[in-house]
Amino acid sequence: MTVEKNKIEMDDGFSEVVTLGIDDPLCLTSGECLSSFKIAYKCWGTLNGDKSNAILVCHALTGDQYACGQNPITGKEGWWPKLIGPGLAIDTDKYFVICSNVLGSCSGSSGPKEMNPETNEPYGLDFPVITIADMVGAQVRLIDYLEIDQLFSVIGGSMGGMQVIQWAVDHNTRVKTAIPIASTWRHSAQNIAFHEVGRQAIMADPNWQNGRYFETKNRPKAGLSVARMAAHITYMSEKSLTSKFGRNLQDREKLTFGFDADFQVESYLRYQGISFVDRFDANSYLYITRAMDYYDISAEFDGSLLAALDNTPVKFCIMSFTSDWLYTTEESREMVRALNAVGAQVSFVEIEMDKGHDSFLLECPEMFNIISGFLAAEARFDGSNSDE
Amino acid sequence: MTVEKNKIEMDDGFSEVVTLGIDDPLCLTSGECLSSFKIAYKCWGTLNGDKSNAILVCHALTGDQYACGQNPITGKEGWWPKLIGPGLAIDTDKYFVICSNVLGSCSGSSGPKEMNPETNEPYGLDFPVITIADMVGAQVRLIDYLEIDQLFSVIGGSMGGMQVIQWAVDHNTRVKTAIPIASTWRHSAQNIAFHEVGRQAIMADPNWQNGRYFETKNRPKAGLSVARMAAHITYMSEKSLTSKFGRNLQDREKLTFGFDADFQVESYLRYQGISFVDRFDANSYLYITRAMDYYDISAEFDGSLLAALDNTPVKFCIMSFTSDWLYTTEESREMVRALNAVGAQVSFVEIEMDKGHDSFLLECPEMFNIISGFLAAEARFDGSNSDE
Repeated sequence: MTVEKNKIEMDDGFSEVVTLGIDDPLCLTSGECLSSFKIAYKCWGTLNGDKSNAILVCHALTGDQYACGQNPITGKEGWWPKLIGPGLAIDTDKYFVICSNVLGSCSGSSGPKEMNPETNEPYGLDFPVITIADMVGAQVRLIDYLEIDQLFSVIGGSMGGMQVIQWAVDHNTRVKTAIPIASTWRHSAQNIAFHEVGRQAIMADPNWQNGRYFETKNRPKAGLSVARMAAHITYMSEKSLTSKFGRNLQDREKLTFGFDADFQVESYLRYQGISFVDRFDANSYLYITRAMDYYDISAEFDGSLLAALDNTPVKFCIMSFTSDWLYTTEESREMVRALNAVGAQVSFVEIEMDKGHDSFLLECPEMFNIISGFLAAEARFDGSNSDE
Repeated sequence: MTVEKNKIEMDDGFSEVVTLGIDDPLCLTSGECLSSFKIAYKCWGTLNGDKSNAILVCHALTGDQYACGQNPITGKEGWWPKLIGPGLAIDTDKYFVICSNVLGSCSGSSGPKEMNPETNEPYGLDFPVITIADMVGAQVRLIDYLEIDQLFSVIGGSMGGMQVIQWAVDHNTRVKTAIPIASTWRHSAQNIAFHEVGRQAIMADPNWQNGRYFETKNRPKAGLSVARMAAHITYMSEKSLTSKFGRNLQDREKLTFGFDADFQVESYLRYQGISFVDRFDANSYLYITRAMDYYDISAEFDGSLLAALDNTPVKFCIMSFTSDWLYTTEESREMVRALNAVGAQVSFVEIEMDKGHDSFLLECPEMFNIISGFLAAEARFDGSNSDE
């Protein structure tokens, strides 16, 4: 791994991958320690002289480090293509943007799919159960490695937003601004319930083989597909499902009176399930959903959100979407109220959009403008940004 | 089958089962006809001399004919124990109450689990795909058999409410009043999506064996359990899950950093899944969810709900629950608006209750009072009831 640290060029190839923790193991919330772990990441833009223009982008449950540009594995564009890039809200002409695959995932960072250096076989369920704090802990090591003292901003949607909040709480001197979008400060009972359905679907698949499917030719595709289908419903609003599909039939004029996908919405969901298994590892799905379910930023503070945020120097910009029923506006408002109560600087916008939770991944000019404006204001205040 | 038709006594044994359709096959929406089918049913109370006091109770997706009294199979009380009985809102001292297991289900009525009289083996997927209209068609045959011309009322919640609406539309001279609760006039894209997840979970289970599991010792328990878990989340409100479970741990003080049921909500859901497979047939789950997905009362009327309800002589009492996100108040309001637009008699109450869709099955004095009052008012108007 060779990177000219102060100037990392955009590239269209695969990610950089760095092995960390060798001299200083990463000790996890569970108490287990990783004495060596890999983090796959991508960077765009140029780190400025005083290293004050770095923005860390945190991905969601099934995301990866390919936030913008082309994803070399799928050949499709990254997952936040309209937000990050030259001249866009997160302007890679101004900012140095970093996105890393979270610990436990399956796109190059250490996780159940990767080789356990101690046994030279894939971890499977021997990979330690991780938390959002552990994902962030690994990101801190990456930022150390890139020799960046303080991030100009950390931004992310959904589980990405959980990481953002975790950064602000655990490492508040190392992040100037935090932008959690369509996110929450703790997973609710309903959130946990939906994830548990997905995990049970995977573990019920005989091909799962207690997580050791890599020893055979069979993968728990059917179970993972059902898990994805169940989750996908929670990413869309009832209204968007209705306006997109309603009761429209799929390539047929009449009901067939069978168990085929008569309705477009069935066909769409089946496609979501089937296409997902090609790009995602079932064990990683277990680990990451578990990390999300364990997430409660107040837990380490005797359940007090105020205590978690007390004295924070981080400036927050929080966004939610009216039609998001997975992580509702109310949950964002609880964050906002707590931040106000501790005298923190916070701006909050509930964006009117009817596409449900996944709105944060869609074309949303209002969100883009808010991010752009918030960053620009902070850069002006800071006086440190390259366009000043 | 011997029943003294004008006076059927309550009994604590199993249901009556009648074989129908022999002289006059039941032709289904699909075009297929059942030349012989069984309906299992229970009755409570006494049919009066002019047979004007009969109330048909329609059950929901996984319900059965044991609406009140003891369920002889589970040993538990029926599913509407506080609503139906002597002195209760549906007073069996006044009314003759009938509840039958729907066609396609698995509690004695013909369905995929039952023997196909033509082959002398279980139907499995050879059972024809049925609709809510077909369930009601079979109930009409039962009512014919009981020699009742007109039902005083038809009542049901959820899928039971769909049957109620179907009765009022298809057989409007045979039902005086209709009480659909927590129901809808057509299944939405989101409703279909959740059901499709359940079906895919069942069909992904290798033990399903294309529906012919009865030929082996294995049943698709894991798949059916996952289906039930996913559905169960939709029966509860986010608020009720939070107030019942929150993030409470299950019989432990700390997170275990594993994939056990750490949280109470996980343990609860797993129990819902596991206990369900003992009492329900996986193929019936496919058939009944399909019937619900096919349900759109306006479909036969070029998509016009008004046309479906035009000139109806049936008097409606519609109830919804504030916290029901499966079949929302808005869907009930659409029915109410349409009924008002066609000049029908309708009363509507949205009941403030935070328990979600399953509220209709719970202790709800407001609902009980509304039903009791509506039935009493109609009985007074009618002058035909036994207490006049």
